[in-house]
Amino acid sequence: MEISRKESSLLRALATRAGRKKSGCCRCEGIRAVRELLSYYPEKVRFIAIAKRALPQMQCDASLLRIVPDNLFDELAGTVNSQGVIAVADIPAPATGAVEGEFVLALDQLGDPGNFGTIARSLRAAGQKELWYTKGSIDPWGDKAIRSGMGVQFGLNLRRFDTLHDLASFGAVQGINNVFIADPHQGENCFTCKALFDRSIIVIGGEPNGVMGVYPGAEKVIIPMPGNYESINAAQAATVLIFESVRRKTV
Amino acid sequence: MEISRKESSLLRALATRAGRKKSGCCRCEGIRAVRELLSYYPEKVRFIAIAKRALPQMQCDASLLRIVPDNLFDELAGTVNSQGVIAVADIPAPATGAVEGEFVLALDQLGDPGNFGTIARSLRAAGQKELWYTKGSIDPWGDKAIRSGMGVQFGLNLRRFDTLHDLASFGAVQGINNVFIADPHQGENCFTCKALFDRSIIVIGGEPNGVMGVYPGAEKVIIPMPGNYESINAAQAATVLIFESVRRKTV
Repeated sequence: MEISRKESSLLRALATRAGRKKSGCCRCEGIRAVRELLSYYPEKVRFIAIAKRALPQMQCDASLLRIVPDNLFDELAGTVNSQGVIAVADIPAPATGAVEGEFVLALDQLGDPGNFGTIARSLRAAGQKELWYTKGSIDPWGDKAIRSGMGVQFGLNLRRFDTLHDLASFGAVQGINNVFIADPHQGENCFTCKALFDRSIIVIGGEPNGVMGVYPGAEKVIIPMPGNYESINAAQAATVLIFESVRRKTV
Repeated sequence: MEISRKESSLLRALATRAGRKKSGCCRCEGIRAVRELLSYYPEKVRFIAIAKRALPQMQCDASLLRIVPDNLFDELAGTVNSQGVIAVADIPAPATGAVEGEFVLALDQLGDPGNFGTIARSLRAAGQKELWYTKGSIDPWGDKAIRSGMGVQFGLNLRRFDTLHDLASFGAVQGINNVFIADPHQGENCFTCKALFDRSIIVIGGEPNGVMGVYPGAEKVIIPMPGNYESINAAQAATVLIFESVRRKTV
């Protein structure tokens, strides 16, 4: 089916936060991201806009496909080298079920959508589920966050809190009492800290200030940096910690 | 001193590859990046353009400073929330001296400047020096690569090769015979591979194809992914490997 005018204006509107808020939808761009979305969340896909040139590459329920002329697609896509596929889906309701997996990764005021997305991918690759974040972090359902996350957001338990205090209190109610804060300057060596993944919350702060609030009872952990360097990128720090959990399980 | 017309056109031209090629200079934006540049490479700094509003934040040799009206600065900067400081420096000559550190990180056709920069930062934080790359990778001296690398490029030994084969041959001449290729699908577990950092070259491929050429004698290493996920971001993969070297030294 050809894309309708209404559908293409929705697609356009979803590039903005206001448009997402109004419609309750988000857009999910790229072949891998759409595949991820369909695997976790097929019932909430409204339609999949596809450039004529990309038709041979996309296998899915044909009734979802809306064919878009190549030049209109490029205008709607917003990326320069688009893969020709954008799905429109309902934004998932915040997770409300039980906390899953071995630990929670929490992002405190993480302002960069690219970092949010790559952290989500690392977490997904490590087989974990819980990605929590505080107010002041970016919108996980924005274009760039979904693109850099390649849609893994749809399969994670995202939970949003106003403050780090609220976040830790919710954890405590769920029986998660170990809170670790990644700190660039001090703390226990993350590679030797025994309880780091023992039903814990690991908090990563947005750069350049790290975690802003001090949470009582939280312990600091540090990633050792023999190069005497101020700090690495927040997504890199999160990934080092996430894959330390993988290492401990696989060796 | 106020910025001259010639200087501001140079600054503008350096946003493009052609402009960098013609002048042999690059621009380095942000307070931390300029600090890094000055610490490694002070003699090659041509001038430092500074927005009037940022003057109190920048301490350096006053003869280098060129004061720029705030609105002109924003136009020149190219970032939305600029910190108000851009240095112009000669692009460093490619490294020619001996290979330093314990291992070489090699990027094969890495097309994303943000990834290039964050990998450079991780390497710097880990205290390593050698960052090699093949043709088809992005320009390490472009705006975005320097910004996301926060200028650590200036302190690393960057070496560029036409092909992976040339890269490995150069390594062999330097007595580096272990070549490892990070592979998303198969190989030895990176967390147990003993020789991984033993005067080795570790090759990371640009997404989504990974390393394209097969290099004879190279061994594959894999980052285990219990989540059964296709692959993580190239910069995340590089950082997991880089910090595995740190872990082995610090525990």
